[in-house]
Amino acid sequence: MKIRRVLGILTISCLGLTSLVNAKEIKLSKEEMQKATQVYFDRCAGCHGMLRKGALGPSLEATRSKEFGTETLKHIINFGTPGGMPGWGKTGELTKEETELMAKYIQIEAPLPPEKSMADMKKSHKILIPVKDRPKAPEAENWKDYFAVILRDVGEIAIIDGVTKKVVSVVPSGFATHITRTGASGRYMYVIGRDGKASMIDLWMKVPKNVAEIRTCNDARAIDTSKHPDYKDKYAIVGCYWPPSIVTLEADTLEPLKIVSTASYTYDTQEFTREARVAAIIASHERPEWVVNIKETGQVWLYDYSDIKNPKITMVDAERYLHDGGWDLSKRYFMTAANARNIISVIDTVKGNLVANIPSQGIKPHPGRGVNVNSKKYGPIWGSGHIGSNDIIFIGTDPVNYPQNAWKVVKKISLPGEGGGNLFIKGHPNSPYIFADRPVNPDRKLQTQIYVIDKESLEVVKTIPIPKKYLTPAKTEDGKEVASRGPVHFEFNADGSEVWTSIWGNKLKASPILIYDSKTLELKSVIDDKRLITPTGKFNVTNTMTDTY
Amino acid sequence: MKIRRVLGILTISCLGLTSLVNAKEIKLSKEEMQKATQVYFDRCAGCHGMLRKGALGPSLEATRSKEFGTETLKHIINFGTPGGMPGWGKTGELTKEETELMAKYIQIEAPLPPEKSMADMKKSHKILIPVKDRPKAPEAENWKDYFAVILRDVGEIAIIDGVTKKVVSVVPSGFATHITRTGASGRYMYVIGRDGKASMIDLWMKVPKNVAEIRTCNDARAIDTSKHPDYKDKYAIVGCYWPPSIVTLEADTLEPLKIVSTASYTYDTQEFTREARVAAIIASHERPEWVVNIKETGQVWLYDYSDIKNPKITMVDAERYLHDGGWDLSKRYFMTAANARNIISVIDTVKGNLVANIPSQGIKPHPGRGVNVNSKKYGPIWGSGHIGSNDIIFIGTDPVNYPQNAWKVVKKISLPGEGGGNLFIKGHPNSPYIFADRPVNPDRKLQTQIYVIDKESLEVVKTIPIPKKYLTPAKTEDGKEVASRGPVHFEFNADGSEVWTSIWGNKLKASPILIYDSKTLELKSVIDDKRLITPTGKFNVTNTMTDTY
Repeated sequence: MKIRRVLGILTISCLGLTSLVNAKEIKLSKEEMQKATQVYFDRCAGCHGMLRKGALGPSLEATRSKEFGTETLKHIINFGTPGGMPGWGKTGELTKEETELMAKYIQIEAPLPPEKSMADMKKSHKILIPVKDRPKAPEAENWKDYFAVILRDVGEIAIIDGVTKKVVSVVPSGFATHITRTGASGRYMYVIGRDGKASMIDLWMKVPKNVAEIRTCNDARAIDTSKHPDYKDKYAIVGCYWPPSIVTLEADTLEPLKIVSTASYTYDTQEFTREARVAAIIASHERPEWVVNIKETGQVWLYDYSDIKNPKITMVDAERYLHDGGWDLSKRYFMTAANARNIISVIDTVKGNLVANIPSQGIKPHPGRGVNVNSKKYGPIWGSGHIGSNDIIFIGTDPVNYPQNAWKVVKKISLPGEGGGNLFIKGHPNSPYIFADRPVNPDRKLQTQIYVIDKESLEVVKTIPIPKKYLTPAKTEDGKEVASRGPVHFEFNADGSEVWTSIWGNKLKASPILIYDSKTLELKSVIDDKRLITPTGKFNVTNTMTDTY
Repeated sequence: MKIRRVLGILTISCLGLTSLVNAKEIKLSKEEMQKATQVYFDRCAGCHGMLRKGALGPSLEATRSKEFGTETLKHIINFGTPGGMPGWGKTGELTKEETELMAKYIQIEAPLPPEKSMADMKKSHKILIPVKDRPKAPEAENWKDYFAVILRDVGEIAIIDGVTKKVVSVVPSGFATHITRTGASGRYMYVIGRDGKASMIDLWMKVPKNVAEIRTCNDARAIDTSKHPDYKDKYAIVGCYWPPSIVTLEADTLEPLKIVSTASYTYDTQEFTREARVAAIIASHERPEWVVNIKETGQVWLYDYSDIKNPKITMVDAERYLHDGGWDLSKRYFMTAANARNIISVIDTVKGNLVANIPSQGIKPHPGRGVNVNSKKYGPIWGSGHIGSNDIIFIGTDPVNYPQNAWKVVKKISLPGEGGGNLFIKGHPNSPYIFADRPVNPDRKLQTQIYVIDKESLEVVKTIPIPKKYLTPAKTEDGKEVASRGPVHFEFNADGSEVWTSIWGNKLKASPILIYDSKTLELKSVIDDKRLITPTGKFNVTNTMTDTY
């Protein structure tokens, strides 16, 4: 009898709820499993993968985690590691209880995440405002100088007028939005949440609102649109983490058209990788093509959308694990970081092949889109910072007029002080300076400064500390006092005269956006609005439209 | 104590050996599981899939099989179904014990088949005769008129001289070879076994031998070579059933170069399909492209191999479930059967899109490569037979000069007598007739005749019964007497003056190949060689090189 009951339980366990079987002494209740699965998705899956096979972070497969044991894992989750693992307890993101729960959870077999069919997607598709009911002309003057600001932890987007500095609208988005992109005309701002919810905001409306939304994935990082003149505002594309896939949609309604699986073979060892995630997408301006980074396999896929029903995909071997990247000055070459291998891969989108894998001479390059400079000395160069070291590098990108500099690190500088922690650098043709942040550097002082690099000397010419009053401390659930991390991410206004940065606070308090003069470096104004909870990435309509950085 | 032991067993069972858990009352020993897994692979996986999700045959997933129960399943496996399921017991292919074993096995969860990495493949790669040690010129006179004859159940290929009709060589191959193809120059004959073993035979040798081999898959059906003039004899390609993938290789050594996963989304419902199998591959003569049928998803992939490291794949929506097909007379249009939907899909390989999905007006079209006729009345037409009905259809394939006939069934005829059972039809420009077999028709008389269709009238003008003496009966292991099925598959000699057909016997006795005059229809000669065990498909070097049918 007893055995029969055990048999019953374990039969179920074999059909998915594997926790009971594999945990042995470790047991979690259904509620604990649900909670842990959510926390894992929110905080861990990005670097370690839904299947826990590892990517930027190491494998967390149950067998390996068991070797560490609960106490060691608790310590790592609480305090982080020098390798880049955040101290989730220390930063107040996880409570003591959550830390313990996660230490146990990762010693239990990962449940297989669900698939998503076209029918599933269509259930979540909403046209909130039909095309015919939308404005026929812009209802606001400055819409081309609007900023879309990600309010990360509250799942909202603030639309801010770049001229008046007023918040014109706050619209709901998916959870922890990773990026927003405009269409070719700039009218619509496309938003992708980490939860795979895509939405589009009509910037022509006096008060911009979401006009359509759809959940194309369970986990996502990338969205873009068709930027080729013949396909202006015709299609959108979402890159999914899970299910690993590329989804194309109608640009004006987000109606899903096509799903392409990215499950594929690693470019080097050629092993099948079920979880081959889309890390970044960028649209070509010259060709009807999207450039798609497949993280785990180290391939860049050139997705030709000219026949949307019958896509043509060129699979280019690059390097693992691909993360983010941007265009060189000519917009022919895609410069992208294989961050786990400390490589910058260069893809020629005209020839459709790899030009070079360039050692980044630093630890964990993290370019975002990177920065372009037309240097008197080196010619056109593209730059990136690093998460794991204080190196900023510049690579020559003009093989025709500056062959001696092409695809080499022509200049490497160090941000002052120890350690990396840089996430973004940004430039603009009308600014003499490049701006760099350092929000994940453990040193409080370094973390709360802006680093200013002169475009001609390519040296750090100034560090701007953020005045204390803007680093408003707040109390976490379990009473810990946590101050804002400091400035994160930069964006220029349309004419490049101002540069904006967000103060990365926590969700208990609003944080300001600081605006500096891009020539005098004076603090010109502060946007302080109680609705600005955890502002992070900012995207100016004109600069996003034109890929200016 | 007892419970702890059960726990132990079942923990293991969750990690793959699921039989014990899910079988409930049905238990199989380790040996029985191994035996059943092999039989399933040999007899069932082709139509029902390794994951048992179904394709040409219905789903055999454990939950569904349990509803039928052991007795019903035994009956179906033994006697077959009108839908096309063979009666494996009746035909003597399975013993009583094996039939019972399989009825139980399919009520147990399918074990997940293994992956195959580049490293795995390379372990099985053998260059048996290095390029430098192979003949510099042909050592035999008639090599361009050689036939490669598949000896299905013994895993061998017989090379037969089309002029002398002598067996010049018998070489080992993979199990139950599905097809053989030549390179562009005809020198090498490439062979793919159902077990995924690819091998290549050098026809320039006085006694042709295998010169290289590799196991690229665990289950495969398709192989071809680069036929574009600029890539003559440069690359080979294998299409895998499991792992679902495309593997490209060096044509002279079979050294593996690249693996591309075919796991993808169904073209219509857009659901992820892990088991998306490569059913057929055909090489373009005009473009550096392979045409690849993805069975379960109903897509045809045009695989551009001009940059072998960075393939460019156009994914064309067609219909499910794709099986076999061939070129139209112009070699621009790929005519392929979606056999579960009774559709002939037409792919334009120049435009890279679907031209038409044409109802085949019969049940389960099975063209092989099909047949081409330049008809005075209809212009260029392409024809196919059916497994499930006695219909032979002809479709117009010249939209320029015969637009009124293009992509329509212009003629449909019926083979005499009830039921289908046709597997192959074949033609040649120098033959006034098309020849059709019917080996899987249940009626003994119909099964053992050759059906002759006149190319001008497109009517069946003659049926040729196979003389009894060539249908040599043999005894199976459990003493059942089973005669040969009758003629299967046709191939012409190089000048089209003769047509060859195999007598499909069983592996207990040799079976002859009969050779008819393609104009007078007289039986000209019989190749009777004790080494010819279960001869089936035959491929003439010249006709295969030039895709003449």
